[in-house]
Amino acid sequence: MEIYGDLRSGNCLKVKMVADLLGLPYTWQDVDIMQGQSRTEQFLKMNPFGQVPVVHWPDGRSLAQSNAIIRYLAAGSRLLPEDPFARAQVDQWLAWEQYSHEPYVAVCRFQMLYLNKPAEQREDWRVTRGDEALDLMQAHLEATPWMVATQFTIADISLLAYTQLAEEGGFDLAQRPAIEAWIARCQEQLNEPTA
Amino acid sequence: MEIYGDLRSGNCLKVKMVADLLGLPYTWQDVDIMQGQSRTEQFLKMNPFGQVPVVHWPDGRSLAQSNAIIRYLAAGSRLLPEDPFARAQVDQWLAWEQYSHEPYVAVCRFQMLYLNKPAEQREDWRVTRGDEALDLMQAHLEATPWMVATQFTIADISLLAYTQLAEEGGFDLAQRPAIEAWIARCQEQLNEPTA
Repeated sequence: MEIYGDLRSGNCLKVKMVADLLGLPYTWQDVDIMQGQSRTEQFLKMNPFGQVPVVHWPDGRSLAQSNAIIRYLAAGSRLLPEDPFARAQVDQWLAWEQYSHEPYVAVCRFQMLYLNKPAEQREDWRVTRGDEALDLMQAHLEATPWMVATQFTIADISLLAYTQLAEEGGFDLAQRPAIEAWIARCQEQLNEPTA
Repeated sequence: MEIYGDLRSGNCLKVKMVADLLGLPYTWQDVDIMQGQSRTEQFLKMNPFGQVPVVHWPDGRSLAQSNAIIRYLAAGSRLLPEDPFARAQVDQWLAWEQYSHEPYVAVCRFQMLYLNKPAEQREDWRVTRGDEALDLMQAHLEATPWMVATQFTIADISLLAYTQLAEEGGFDLAQRPAIEAWIARCQEQLNEPTA
């Protein structure tokens, strides 16, 4: 399979992390969104959403939306719980990540890193909601080592993607020690997946 | 099970539609978000996200996030395809709905209906993105009767929730006839589910 993505994008990193963890063979196709490469006629034919990441298979199928892709790739693996309710809790966090975390934490980072805005030029409401999202994760991770159940899942991977980069968006992780400890646990899983 | 929700909210309607279609017994618990009822200590204990809808079971389990709830309720039913890739396409549209449709179409409606703003006071960027989302659905539905595969699924239900109310947010459906025809097909399914 081919993964079309931009390595600076957390949404694209999610797909790379899952493919690497599960040892799925793929070819990485770099797409520079800042150069409009996700809006060309050829790209839109493969992905009408005009976004990365998108996965393309030799038989012509394509799948977009980072969380939908990692859920599909992780089906039947140790990264997705067998219990249906635990899987529903994974879906709950995936939905929350896209609605209540990414639009604030990732977009602030985009403004600072891609558009070179200083932290003070981020919109107040966006910063407030990003802080609320990180506070909610901090409270959750004070009580449990992983986002869902007792195992490292795609809910962790999805939330790790931009949470580990939150400081590039002007957010403070040092005052959220449970998140920092969780990031370290996640990175251990990524570096030594069989440990 | 108990469904906590606000009947004016499309996100809550999704859960009601799926429970009704599948004949799942439930008690509806009204939550008035404009009166802060989703932010009380008791509510936050059940759902730390402080949002509706949330489903609560007698054994103490709770599940939040509309699309995660309907995916859980629909598992094994005719509303979720058996084919894994078709299910992934359902997930793709659920993610797109929460990220690229709801924040524009539903939020404009919220501003007009709940906050009594005139259409002209909606933010331009939000209106533009709402129009882009509806245009993308129109293009998709010109080519296919349902959002995914050849059947009515929770992808249709999720997108129907706010699309059918888009005019309350100042969006024009009359110029998007494929969406109007799809809404009519969906409503037929909801009214005569066995047809």
